[in-house]
Amino acid sequence: MAHAQKIPSRRGPERPRTFAVIMAGGHSTRFWPLGRRRLPKQLLALTGRQTLLQETAARLVPLVSARGLLVVTAAEHAAEVHRQLPRVPKDNILVEPRGRNTAACIALAAEWITTNHGDGLMLVVPADHVVRESDALRDALTRAGALARQGDLLVLVGMQPTRAETGYGYIRLGGPVPSTIGDQAAWVRAFHEKPARATAQRYVASGEYLWNSGMFAWTARTFLAALESCLPAVRRPLAGVWSDREPAARLRRAYRRLPNVSVDVGVLQPLSKQRRGPARIAVTRAGFEWFDVGSWSAMPELWGCDEAGNAVVGTLVAVDAGGCVVYAPDRLVALVGVRDLVVAESGGALLVCPRDRAQEVREVTRVLEQRRLVRFL
Amino acid sequence: MAHAQKIPSRRGPERPRTFAVIMAGGHSTRFWPLGRRRLPKQLLALTGRQTLLQETAARLVPLVSARGLLVVTAAEHAAEVHRQLPRVPKDNILVEPRGRNTAACIALAAEWITTNHGDGLMLVVPADHVVRESDALRDALTRAGALARQGDLLVLVGMQPTRAETGYGYIRLGGPVPSTIGDQAAWVRAFHEKPARATAQRYVASGEYLWNSGMFAWTARTFLAALESCLPAVRRPLAGVWSDREPAARLRRAYRRLPNVSVDVGVLQPLSKQRRGPARIAVTRAGFEWFDVGSWSAMPELWGCDEAGNAVVGTLVAVDAGGCVVYAPDRLVALVGVRDLVVAESGGALLVCPRDRAQEVREVTRVLEQRRLVRFL
Repeated sequence: MAHAQKIPSRRGPERPRTFAVIMAGGHSTRFWPLGRRRLPKQLLALTGRQTLLQETAARLVPLVSARGLLVVTAAEHAAEVHRQLPRVPKDNILVEPRGRNTAACIALAAEWITTNHGDGLMLVVPADHVVRESDALRDALTRAGALARQGDLLVLVGMQPTRAETGYGYIRLGGPVPSTIGDQAAWVRAFHEKPARATAQRYVASGEYLWNSGMFAWTARTFLAALESCLPAVRRPLAGVWSDREPAARLRRAYRRLPNVSVDVGVLQPLSKQRRGPARIAVTRAGFEWFDVGSWSAMPELWGCDEAGNAVVGTLVAVDAGGCVVYAPDRLVALVGVRDLVVAESGGALLVCPRDRAQEVREVTRVLEQRRLVRFL
Repeated sequence: MAHAQKIPSRRGPERPRTFAVIMAGGHSTRFWPLGRRRLPKQLLALTGRQTLLQETAARLVPLVSARGLLVVTAAEHAAEVHRQLPRVPKDNILVEPRGRNTAACIALAAEWITTNHGDGLMLVVPADHVVRESDALRDALTRAGALARQGDLLVLVGMQPTRAETGYGYIRLGGPVPSTIGDQAAWVRAFHEKPARATAQRYVASGEYLWNSGMFAWTARTFLAALESCLPAVRRPLAGVWSDREPAARLRRAYRRLPNVSVDVGVLQPLSKQRRGPARIAVTRAGFEWFDVGSWSAMPELWGCDEAGNAVVGTLVAVDAGGCVVYAPDRLVALVGVRDLVVAESGGALLVCPRDRAQEVREVTRVLEQRRLVRFL
């Protein structure tokens, strides 16, 4: 495996030209009772001692300094983000007054870069992914970044699919991108969101598709130009926001009007259909182990299993019990005669539900609200 | 309902002639993780703020003073019994070196009464029953005691069966006992332990059977005579034990040899077959609500249920979940999409198992021993 290298055009710590933009604005409470309103998925230590955000930042600092890290997050999570990443300057933590999906999130970071640094390469990554092979991730981002900078392109990191996953987006590959950087990049022909199982199987078998990882590389100016052409309703209210005297007040006004739209739906998919215009979309192929941890039921992939198929954080006594996900670091858990359950204990609250209904934990938070059991939210 | 009255022959607080004997020697850990080795069922507060032992004692003190209460218990539980019943004199807590079932337990109490008081009426009750109608229980024991004293009989309290329960013992009724105390008592014709369902249904329909409640009335001398005739292996090693200089050492030696046999199997059943001899067996009919709480799965009877059939101690959020037994006084429990589970949390340990497998919690304690997780035992 090639070791990651710093992108050569970076000028130095005083004026970083490459920025890692960590999208940490998620509000997922699907890991309740561990996850709470004030502690969404990306701020949880699901895999070890570090939180997903901390792991994400640690993976990126070999590519950019702490001053080159930008974190976009929600107002109610900003203090916790600062606590978890004390070396990132406070000015680099960009606070959204409310969540407006990834188009606005990336636009906010692009504005910050153009205002403060004229332009810069953006390596955009979600805060809540689990990646084991950090070197391979850095290698993929480095290649994507070099390509983006070289060709004035919007570049996606596409993952080699390993199964007919129906929960991910797929990228259909076009022809090869002529490139001097030795990378087998391809043009993006089309996007397909969350296909049916049979379709997903066909995609994987064809070899013509990659998973959309949600990781991107482009320069701030290239992105803002694409946004202007596809999604001016996001571009214009944010234009120049960081040179405003009171950016917080300006942001509050702007975010009230912004459409809630992802960068995929609002920018990349429209651009992939329009064959002319300022930006073209390419994809670099990556093959490292990567998880978008959606719920408790995915934990066996992260934690591994015992011989009965139980994935456990804590101490488990299993009597004829298997296939369960147990998170209870402070408890002894005894399971007798049960299969495929999630049992999770944290902060005075306990969840028991079948693994295939782990998504419905959101319903619990709705009931907690109704019953005003706010200390468990 | 007739109110209970003190049995008239009682002489006064200095020399009580009626004794309530509470059998508190059980080692049941079927309520793990609430129940532990040092805290078996009878020492738990399953129904409210008082433990089953405390509730049992409170039901009996209108019949006998605290000095008339005898509690027979295991060495490892004696301190807790004393803590829970501070008004019972320490000398009235009779400590068995090991559990040897109800024949030995009652013999030990009978010996204590004859040694200290010459003779006395014994009202024998288990410590782990749940009884809601205390007045009716006292009324039944009063009638049984009067009959036992009057006729030199072994008297059982028989419960009117309300369902074809297969877990209880049944008493087949013979002819009426001639009595001057206005009670409809009957001779016992036969005992039938834990019948098959069809048999149980026949018993209940016939009107000729009562449940064996495990509550008895007899004088100490009558009982010891019956024991001598049926079960000398229990009678003789214990004879005179309380006038020994070192009763504790004598008891340790004696209990090593005692057979492990219940009073039903060792005394009452043999006597019911032999139609001559010193003692005859009668049964008084009672009809109060009475539970022999065997495991977590029985708790809905005690606690009641919500509209989804969940029986709960603690705070429950149920999303499409029903028929569950939840014990977690210090936790919020969220159940999503599960049915008929036991979820019990106590002392840093958590149990999840189907209600119909609640008996298998004993297997958990076996594994805890194997894995030396002793602090959870």
